[in-house]
Amino acid sequence: MSEAFDTTVDAFLGGQVMLEQPTKGYRAGLDPVLLAASVPAVEGQSVLELGCGTGAALLCLGRRVANLTLCGVELQHQYAELCRKNATANDVDALIYTADLRSLPQDVTARTFDHVISNPPYFERTSGKASPLADRDIAFAGDTSMVDWVDAATRRLKPKGWLSLIQKADRLPDVLRTIDSRLGDVAVYPITGRANRAADRFILRARKGARGPFKLHAPIPLHEGASHVDDQPDYRSEIAGILRNGLAFKLPD
Amino acid sequence: MSEAFDTTVDAFLGGQVMLEQPTKGYRAGLDPVLLAASVPAVEGQSVLELGCGTGAALLCLGRRVANLTLCGVELQHQYAELCRKNATANDVDALIYTADLRSLPQDVTARTFDHVISNPPYFERTSGKASPLADRDIAFAGDTSMVDWVDAATRRLKPKGWLSLIQKADRLPDVLRTIDSRLGDVAVYPITGRANRAADRFILRARKGARGPFKLHAPIPLHEGASHVDDQPDYRSEIAGILRNGLAFKLPD
Repeated sequence: MSEAFDTTVDAFLGGQVMLEQPTKGYRAGLDPVLLAASVPAVEGQSVLELGCGTGAALLCLGRRVANLTLCGVELQHQYAELCRKNATANDVDALIYTADLRSLPQDVTARTFDHVISNPPYFERTSGKASPLADRDIAFAGDTSMVDWVDAATRRLKPKGWLSLIQKADRLPDVLRTIDSRLGDVAVYPITGRANRAADRFILRARKGARGPFKLHAPIPLHEGASHVDDQPDYRSEIAGILRNGLAFKLPD
Repeated sequence: MSEAFDTTVDAFLGGQVMLEQPTKGYRAGLDPVLLAASVPAVEGQSVLELGCGTGAALLCLGRRVANLTLCGVELQHQYAELCRKNATANDVDALIYTADLRSLPQDVTARTFDHVISNPPYFERTSGKASPLADRDIAFAGDTSMVDWVDAATRRLKPKGWLSLIQKADRLPDVLRTIDSRLGDVAVYPITGRANRAADRFILRARKGARGPFKLHAPIPLHEGASHVDDQPDYRSEIAGILRNGLAFKLPD
């Protein structure tokens, strides 16, 4: 991406969050919104997002829960810049660092958080086939391995702090592999397009220092019915409430 | 378990398989039956079971699919003895070895199989709290780690051979962690008591030398409805057909 690039301003949560993001490159979709809605944060807590992009998750979370201390880390400075601009434009306080999560600035490593959230890139760069859009490429297919994401997140959690991740379903083994004994109460919530389909995505929640067993929850379908019958959007009402009204995504314990 | 011990003879698949098993100790339930029903074996193929116990899975599979070459490995000689006796009594040909899967006999290591199946112990012996029934303890809580089970299974598979496992849901991370690049097309089928519940068990299927991505399938409920309404068994008809009539458990690709 060159220094000058095209952006669009897109509405999230039915317009409660307006996000300026690059026209080409990584553009926030459903996933950061679902992630933000699922975070069990309460008023006054602190939240760190690793790989915050232009701020979709952080700003949606800041809009839903009052008085959070929000902090984001983003490797790519154009995204980090847009994220700062978006925070200001949306009147949400958030401290955004341009940094590699493998060498976080001292301001971040000196602190721990009630929540660490992340929507890591959905592909690992193994093929060596980089797209012409280098930034888009990093956001989709990072060269930071999953273990570094989860390790950095785990380190930054307070005791009993919550990790919340969203990721593509086919990377579940990669994610579970990275979770060590520092985390417990690990819960996976599969997200499917419709009922009785294989999972597309999952949200993973875990707690630092907890000891409860792993739990594989019932899948959560996004859409009503067995197939798309007409041109109307057909989100289930729970999902529509999250996406359009900024409601919480209530995940069972 | 002493050399002399009480046994019962129990009916599986509506009486198509009669299994002599210890009164106290590990007794086969639903899980080996579901596992056997799920194995995509066809007439004439070879099957190895690691930890075959008294033979529930092996004999159910041998009853459903004709002309299989069946081979079982069991650490505990009383179970292995009963397994041989059960194979004969059910008129199923099966070669049962009393052996530790970490040091399989040469007769087994000299061969590879179209299918390797297993229902590994559901607990790892970490607490050091052994039950007075040592054999029961090994069958429930082995001191062989999951990685040894999956490694031994993987080694014994032919190219494109299928691994089929059943395990408690809370051990999904332990199992996925052990799967390396020798296996692909890894698919997890959660098994739940009823619809919209967290998973109790899962069947995992993988293929040696395959390269397809991991897939998390829709859960398969055992029972009808949201709760048990009276004293009648309420298995869904697909499950009843497997348990009572010996039908195949058809898992989607």
